[in-house]
Amino acid sequence: MDDVLKDHVIAVIGGTGALGSGLAKRLAAAGKTVIIGSRTADKAQGMAQGLAVPAGAPAVRGMTNADAAAAATVAIVTVPWGSQAEILAEIAPHVAGKLVIDCTVPLVPPKVARVQLPAQQSAAIAAQERLGAGVRVVSGFHNVAAHKLATDADIDCDVLVFGDEPKDRAIAVAIAEAAKLRGIHAGPLVNSVAAEALTSILIGINRNYKVDGAGLRITGIKA
Amino acid sequence: MDDVLKDHVIAVIGGTGALGSGLAKRLAAAGKTVIIGSRTADKAQGMAQGLAVPAGAPAVRGMTNADAAAAATVAIVTVPWGSQAEILAEIAPHVAGKLVIDCTVPLVPPKVARVQLPAQQSAAIAAQERLGAGVRVVSGFHNVAAHKLATDADIDCDVLVFGDEPKDRAIAVAIAEAAKLRGIHAGPLVNSVAAEALTSILIGINRNYKVDGAGLRITGIKA
Repeated sequence: MDDVLKDHVIAVIGGTGALGSGLAKRLAAAGKTVIIGSRTADKAQGMAQGLAVPAGAPAVRGMTNADAAAAATVAIVTVPWGSQAEILAEIAPHVAGKLVIDCTVPLVPPKVARVQLPAQQSAAIAAQERLGAGVRVVSGFHNVAAHKLATDADIDCDVLVFGDEPKDRAIAVAIAEAAKLRGIHAGPLVNSVAAEALTSILIGINRNYKVDGAGLRITGIKA
Repeated sequence: MDDVLKDHVIAVIGGTGALGSGLAKRLAAAGKTVIIGSRTADKAQGMAQGLAVPAGAPAVRGMTNADAAAAATVAIVTVPWGSQAEILAEIAPHVAGKLVIDCTVPLVPPKVARVQLPAQQSAAIAAQERLGAGVRVVSGFHNVAAHKLATDADIDCDVLVFGDEPKDRAIAVAIAEAAKLRGIHAGPLVNSVAAEALTSILIGINRNYKVDGAGLRITGIKA
């Protein structure tokens, strides 16, 4: 299912954070070609050296976010909403024509269990506006608990993938599958608001029901 | 779990439609006190007479939407987005201080698989604005396929319930349970946008994956 990733170099921008490090760990374990991007190359390299890869698979490399984006064919952006604009500006010169998978959830502390949509309606649309039409933007991985990604365990949560081009969504779906998650084609980029808003709802459900990793599953499909 | 409904009279506004009739059928079968509201009393009565109730339970009645709202303690609004404003205006004089459960999904044909948020951000907020602060508004039942509600079968889909008051959400959760669905407290009314937008995503998934009733489940909770 993930042959589509064969020739891809995947940069995880913000890859030393909670979501990014879990995703990078799983993609490395699956033998994908992974680069950790971070604010400093040192920090990225430190994280990269700790990630195990299967025999014969390329070692994970660590670079600045900009260098990682430059070396990659696909950049996964895993940064907080408050840093999204700055980080996208850093990588923008290096992702023309490439695929950017934005994972940003527009949480506004302290009321993170309350949906507070940005002016652009969604972080995904904000990313597309900031990067411009020359960059292919999809979004996904909004709802998966980062602390679960950090484990090897199966995760009872689907990854809804949004993007205007089915072929671009298919790459994100394949990345989800490489990370042992089920990725689902969930329509155009403008639909991303649903999954982004759902994260606030899951945070609230965690509190209300006293659990620590509520997720969501799409039912009724065989994907 | 649904003792909370013991003294309630539940009006299903727009109760001859696909969603409303399925919900009314299930609530009647559970022995709840149900009134069907419709544009004309004749149509509502015709539907009401066809609904089976358990021995000893009150027969379902049929009335105009306004009369149904007046006779009820809880009004469930199950109408298309294009009719919401008009129907709410009809029932507004009759629901002061009462609970209104709005089920409206702001779909804009023909692109119903594309999220197109209303100016108020969600149909639930639009309902609260139209009814005013003197009416308790919650929202729910956005994601359940109407044709599944019309059957007696178990439905593999949760009902996310939004509202600012936990006690009001609890009534909607109990109504979901009476209808053999799992209701989940999903936070304040402003969060309703997530479930409303998800309906477009489920419609798109139905098309993409060639199924006819994709739904969603919250995982990781014992509710």
